[in-house]
Amino acid sequence: MRAIRLHNQQFQLDHDYPMPSIGEDEVLVKVLLAAICGTDLELALGYYDFDGVPGHEFVGEIASGPEKGLRVVADINIGCWTCVDCLNGQFHHCRERSVLGIKSRGGAFSEYIALPRRNLVAVGPDIPDEVAVLSEPVAAALRVTEPFEGRLPNRVLVIGAGRLGYLVAQVLRSFDIEVLVYTRNKVRVAQLEQAGLVGIGEFQPSEFPWVVDCSGSKGGLLLATEAIAPRGTITLKSTITQPVALDLQSLMVNEVSLIGSRCGDLAKAEAWLSKGFLVPPSSARFGLEQFDQAIRAAKGHEWQKVLIDPQLTEMAS
Amino acid sequence: MRAIRLHNQQFQLDHDYPMPSIGEDEVLVKVLLAAICGTDLELALGYYDFDGVPGHEFVGEIASGPEKGLRVVADINIGCWTCVDCLNGQFHHCRERSVLGIKSRGGAFSEYIALPRRNLVAVGPDIPDEVAVLSEPVAAALRVTEPFEGRLPNRVLVIGAGRLGYLVAQVLRSFDIEVLVYTRNKVRVAQLEQAGLVGIGEFQPSEFPWVVDCSGSKGGLLLATEAIAPRGTITLKSTITQPVALDLQSLMVNEVSLIGSRCGDLAKAEAWLSKGFLVPPSSARFGLEQFDQAIRAAKGHEWQKVLIDPQLTEMAS
Repeated sequence: MRAIRLHNQQFQLDHDYPMPSIGEDEVLVKVLLAAICGTDLELALGYYDFDGVPGHEFVGEIASGPEKGLRVVADINIGCWTCVDCLNGQFHHCRERSVLGIKSRGGAFSEYIALPRRNLVAVGPDIPDEVAVLSEPVAAALRVTEPFEGRLPNRVLVIGAGRLGYLVAQVLRSFDIEVLVYTRNKVRVAQLEQAGLVGIGEFQPSEFPWVVDCSGSKGGLLLATEAIAPRGTITLKSTITQPVALDLQSLMVNEVSLIGSRCGDLAKAEAWLSKGFLVPPSSARFGLEQFDQAIRAAKGHEWQKVLIDPQLTEMAS
Repeated sequence: MRAIRLHNQQFQLDHDYPMPSIGEDEVLVKVLLAAICGTDLELALGYYDFDGVPGHEFVGEIASGPEKGLRVVADINIGCWTCVDCLNGQFHHCRERSVLGIKSRGGAFSEYIALPRRNLVAVGPDIPDEVAVLSEPVAAALRVTEPFEGRLPNRVLVIGAGRLGYLVAQVLRSFDIEVLVYTRNKVRVAQLEQAGLVGIGEFQPSEFPWVVDCSGSKGGLLLATEAIAPRGTITLKSTITQPVALDLQSLMVNEVSLIGSRCGDLAKAEAWLSKGFLVPPSSARFGLEQFDQAIRAAKGHEWQKVLIDPQLTEMAS
């Protein structure tokens, strides 16, 4: 099959990549549409030592067996289901886990992937592929609310208006809290406004009871520590690969919580998307043959989301 | 009155320090016993720009009015009680607050202090001064449990076995969870063992669902990040004045929470102490005249707690 392979931190198209082997309780899934995430860009910078097919945001259809043709999305964490973490419901943190397109398992920038049945969530007919492909980041966005156990603060500052920040802001708005998005990028501000969101370029110190850092940068996190009110919560949502020197005295004195947040529940994401809450991000679509172009587009600000259609074999316009 | 004044980062005894002025709703309290805390040592290193009488761990008695002679301890945070934080029960985080012996208010290394009535908690007759003087740090130790809202992890690693770590370990043990204390200091290990606590000098990575850092040091916090299990909580209990470069990628991927924790509820501390749970730390006692000696003792490891008796006018043995 055709697939993008990440090897020595380079993406390359392989026209004859081996079909994924299908484990016990697994099914073959044909990838209908995939999307590039910040983590994919980080992978190419050596974030993890991964050699294989990247891509973990996708919508596909089951390619064989009785469920053939069923449209699905998937939890990207594949637990061992024999350890106590898995049996305790924490398969996202299984120490033996593989992660689709990130760790020990080929991903969605390819024609086919293999996944355990228990990881799949069926996609409702009202959700088009272009929306369903966002299920994984929408699940991750929904995850930020979980530590509050239903008692969300009344306002939140989202730092960064890129791929993830845009989705997080939309998810939080749907919970009827005041959402502001910090960005100094005018293109991003315009994109936010088109979705009815509010971008700000400055704030008062200690102003927000909740800050979600989606910046993926040291500077973004330092802004979060300035913006957070006493007893507030900073959610670490994006990958910051460099160590950041934090003022821990201020975190301690102000009793701030800093909470790491990663993957969420795909079934919740499907429920949220089926409500029609999402204003879809602007997107460009590429085939596997144009993957280099797609990566360049993902690094730019023109498109909010860059989609990969592995079934496309001609040049996209 | 006699008082220790911190001025230009030097402690000096003043035999003729002005008596505290007593504000509206405040009472004069005669200090029966005070204790030196890590924060006092930090103050002398310039932790805050404080010029005045330090000391915030104390037991005293009301010196005037109808409650004269009543033995009391106090919440050290004096809120304005007009801002929304105070009215919302968060006077510990009032932006206009003064803090006994730390910020804008003279403290307990003196014969008398002034405090609002609402800050005082009466001490039961069964609690001797040598125990009651620990009310403030015991309240701070109890505070670490609050974010769990009654659902504590089943085991915890306390990092550091100094003044605070020793109390935190005892408080947590009383909640029937497994408590281990990390220290590489043999004197500290012996002190722990005498109180029936277990000191360890090494651990497996990612072993603990909860780590409370009482080390006051960068190295201690880095150990905490090694010891914490996925989805675990690191409580920042002590003052770390230097910035620490943290691996935020690992905090994010493992969805770890880092929670600042400062002052607690004095009434809870009194209730806890009245249960007789505490194995009192070994202590040495000094008068104000021997304050330099006391500070040297507080910097050493021989005594777990150094007490100051401001009423003592002769040389202590």
